[in-house]
Amino acid sequence: MSKIPYKLYLTEEEAPKAWLNIRAFMKNKPAPIINPGTHAPCTAEELSHVFCDEAVKQELNETDKYIEIPEGIRDFYKMFRPSPLVRAYNLEKLLDTPAEIYYKFEGNNTSGSHKLNSAAAQVYYAKEQGITTVTTETGAGQWGTALSMAGAFYGVKVKVYMVKGSAMQKPYRKNVMETYGASVTPSPSDTTNVGRAILKEMPDTTGSLGCAISEAVEEAVSTPNTRYLLGSVLNHVLLHQSVIGLECKTALDKYGVTPDVVIGCAGGGSNLGGLMAPFMADKLEGKSNTEFIAVEPASCPSFTRGRFAYDFGDTGKMTPLIKMYTLGSGFIPSPNHAGGLRYHGMNSVLSQLYHDGYLKAKSYEQTNVFEAAVMFARCEGTLPAPESSHAIRAAVDEALKCKETGEHKKILFGLTGTGYFDLAAYDSFNKGTMTDYIPTDADLQKGFDSLPKVD
Amino acid sequence: MSKIPYKLYLTEEEAPKAWLNIRAFMKNKPAPIINPGTHAPCTAEELSHVFCDEAVKQELNETDKYIEIPEGIRDFYKMFRPSPLVRAYNLEKLLDTPAEIYYKFEGNNTSGSHKLNSAAAQVYYAKEQGITTVTTETGAGQWGTALSMAGAFYGVKVKVYMVKGSAMQKPYRKNVMETYGASVTPSPSDTTNVGRAILKEMPDTTGSLGCAISEAVEEAVSTPNTRYLLGSVLNHVLLHQSVIGLECKTALDKYGVTPDVVIGCAGGGSNLGGLMAPFMADKLEGKSNTEFIAVEPASCPSFTRGRFAYDFGDTGKMTPLIKMYTLGSGFIPSPNHAGGLRYHGMNSVLSQLYHDGYLKAKSYEQTNVFEAAVMFARCEGTLPAPESSHAIRAAVDEALKCKETGEHKKILFGLTGTGYFDLAAYDSFNKGTMTDYIPTDADLQKGFDSLPKVD
Repeated sequence: MSKIPYKLYLTEEEAPKAWLNIRAFMKNKPAPIINPGTHAPCTAEELSHVFCDEAVKQELNETDKYIEIPEGIRDFYKMFRPSPLVRAYNLEKLLDTPAEIYYKFEGNNTSGSHKLNSAAAQVYYAKEQGITTVTTETGAGQWGTALSMAGAFYGVKVKVYMVKGSAMQKPYRKNVMETYGASVTPSPSDTTNVGRAILKEMPDTTGSLGCAISEAVEEAVSTPNTRYLLGSVLNHVLLHQSVIGLECKTALDKYGVTPDVVIGCAGGGSNLGGLMAPFMADKLEGKSNTEFIAVEPASCPSFTRGRFAYDFGDTGKMTPLIKMYTLGSGFIPSPNHAGGLRYHGMNSVLSQLYHDGYLKAKSYEQTNVFEAAVMFARCEGTLPAPESSHAIRAAVDEALKCKETGEHKKILFGLTGTGYFDLAAYDSFNKGTMTDYIPTDADLQKGFDSLPKVD
Repeated sequence: MSKIPYKLYLTEEEAPKAWLNIRAFMKNKPAPIINPGTHAPCTAEELSHVFCDEAVKQELNETDKYIEIPEGIRDFYKMFRPSPLVRAYNLEKLLDTPAEIYYKFEGNNTSGSHKLNSAAAQVYYAKEQGITTVTTETGAGQWGTALSMAGAFYGVKVKVYMVKGSAMQKPYRKNVMETYGASVTPSPSDTTNVGRAILKEMPDTTGSLGCAISEAVEEAVSTPNTRYLLGSVLNHVLLHQSVIGLECKTALDKYGVTPDVVIGCAGGGSNLGGLMAPFMADKLEGKSNTEFIAVEPASCPSFTRGRFAYDFGDTGKMTPLIKMYTLGSGFIPSPNHAGGLRYHGMNSVLSQLYHDGYLKAKSYEQTNVFEAAVMFARCEGTLPAPESSHAIRAAVDEALKCKETGEHKKILFGLTGTGYFDLAAYDSFNKGTMTDYIPTDADLQKGFDSLPKVD
């Protein structure tokens, strides 16, 4: 066994040729998506008014363990994948821990995050189906940027509804998307019925992912040859993100390393779901005893304080119902600096796994998270996104625990992206003006009150 | 010979262990740096008041073809190197050219550019010498960020004078440097004699690299245990940047590819000097016939409209004199969007090679450059820095020429960095409000009038 290098790259030939479908490995499958009116499981036909046909097929596929990645998508992946898996030697040294720390860095592309993995796939399928325009929402801006890049590459028009709070915090994100030819509308906007209704009720709202989803869905279903693409939460997104974990596994296997702990930040769940996919598959098959930790912001604690219930994916209550850990689609989180984690719900696969004890969760306040972010930036070089820094915080704490116990754990975490568009947040942390926000039980109750009644 | 992959990565083991010193290959050596008072060549002792001892030694070394990279620097390099060499298949397809286009991408690190290569080396040597604080200037911000990162890594304090125009255009750059623990002062400032003098004469100036250098040098020479580090122009910087070209050569050699044309943007010259180093060495030894092109902004045309003369490196006339292509240290370029290229002079090695016909040069206006930048972003994914986009423009034009002539030229260019902090510039291009600026002969004459008299 040779010494493990700082960066464990794979060659083009070693890159995954199929995604891993984690549902096919689960005994307890996630509950089906249901129609909010009839409460019957949604059919492919129903879903295909909103989503592309291939996305729907993948969304409903619970049986195929592996699904081939078409060459047209692998060609796009070659531009930014395989992404580096890094052994965090410098962080280990700084923490003086016996643990080995690894992170998969998904930020080395202009979208600045892992979102491009699913954007490439979804726009490719849209193009194949003859769709000319796709609509979407974006929070922190990474998903919107990723989709704009994919749209420019495959030649499909992209219309982005961007959460107003993020659009104000990060005007340059809008400029990037426009440079790739997309059109960007701050949400809630007056261009849709649902947007106008939300604005009427809460004229000063800074918006939420839930609102923006509603607007993008409305435009997709009411415009010919247009479909809606979602950047997280759904199972086909999780499927596409499995490329992250598959690359990790191939790289780690070369050095005989099996992670003891896999850690990812969790907003809608796609990054963590992708990172852990092959390792969770091994665990579900009884081949390993790896521990999995979802990390979320204390201001939006879907797992740690949410309910396991059927809920809408959006604030406007336009989507089908998904069984998930949720704070209620009516919950509007405080405008913290991890825009990508401000989502009320959680992917249904992760929710089921959490419910069944395969996955743990913890939450952190943002000042604590930024402390870890700055420490990481200074010793490992890369300035991390606030979202990713939740995973850094948890990985650091795990490594410090090993220092106490003397355990040589192997810790793998997902560094989903860079913080180049989050400098206002870093500035407020550096100046000591950053504050924390934890919702009260009463705040949460308001969200729970918005949950639909399903037997 | 296997098919050339999209990205030609090297392993850690294949990474260069020595830099290439291009002067050792030149018959006509660059003229020596001279003392502005006596006009005698500067001694190591004189220079060491300003620069670190090892930097001075390297600056004056004209004989060693290779200089070993210390392990402490190679450890830092492992965090972001080897950088990808990319075959621009998508760009080739879009242009429908028979040419092969390769680019070396140096932007995959938080400084966003190649500057980290020399920052790592210089701060390492400062630390070894027991220096506690280093000062520097920064234009576009990449060099300042790189130095801040190296300062955080090695534990050396960093004080950055940032060109005021850039500081206003890019407030977030300041936040990044501060996150890495550096202090940042917009230049000209009232904290130095030279800054106060410049402000008195031109209270509304947006500053220049030349001004900022003067301030940083003044602070270094007047403060104990402090040295000044420069991000370009000097020969030891060029030396450190040779790691770029050496990686390219190792990667291309594997596939039997020798570039016919090597293209780099040129401000102070370090990126181009580093990229072309091993290829120019081959040419100087008669082993190849590669063509080399320096690309500069029409607004700051040191090569294409400058004079080959001894000049100061800074506006405040505090530095030794360097024989170079220059517009005169009194020339203040218009505030265009390629801050890193707004420098009046050019490295002396490149100047000598240009003078001797080994290197060509051309200049472009910025709207033309941004056109190429957007085209590149949309097909190759990465949003390029305005500086790097000068090289893209020239490479595209070269490839289009091949389309006319049917030549299968192999074109290599340097993609020095990303444009994530240049979105205001992209926004003005997207909106059609970007303007061009070409200095008149009278503008240039003002700069030439500032040249010192040297026989």
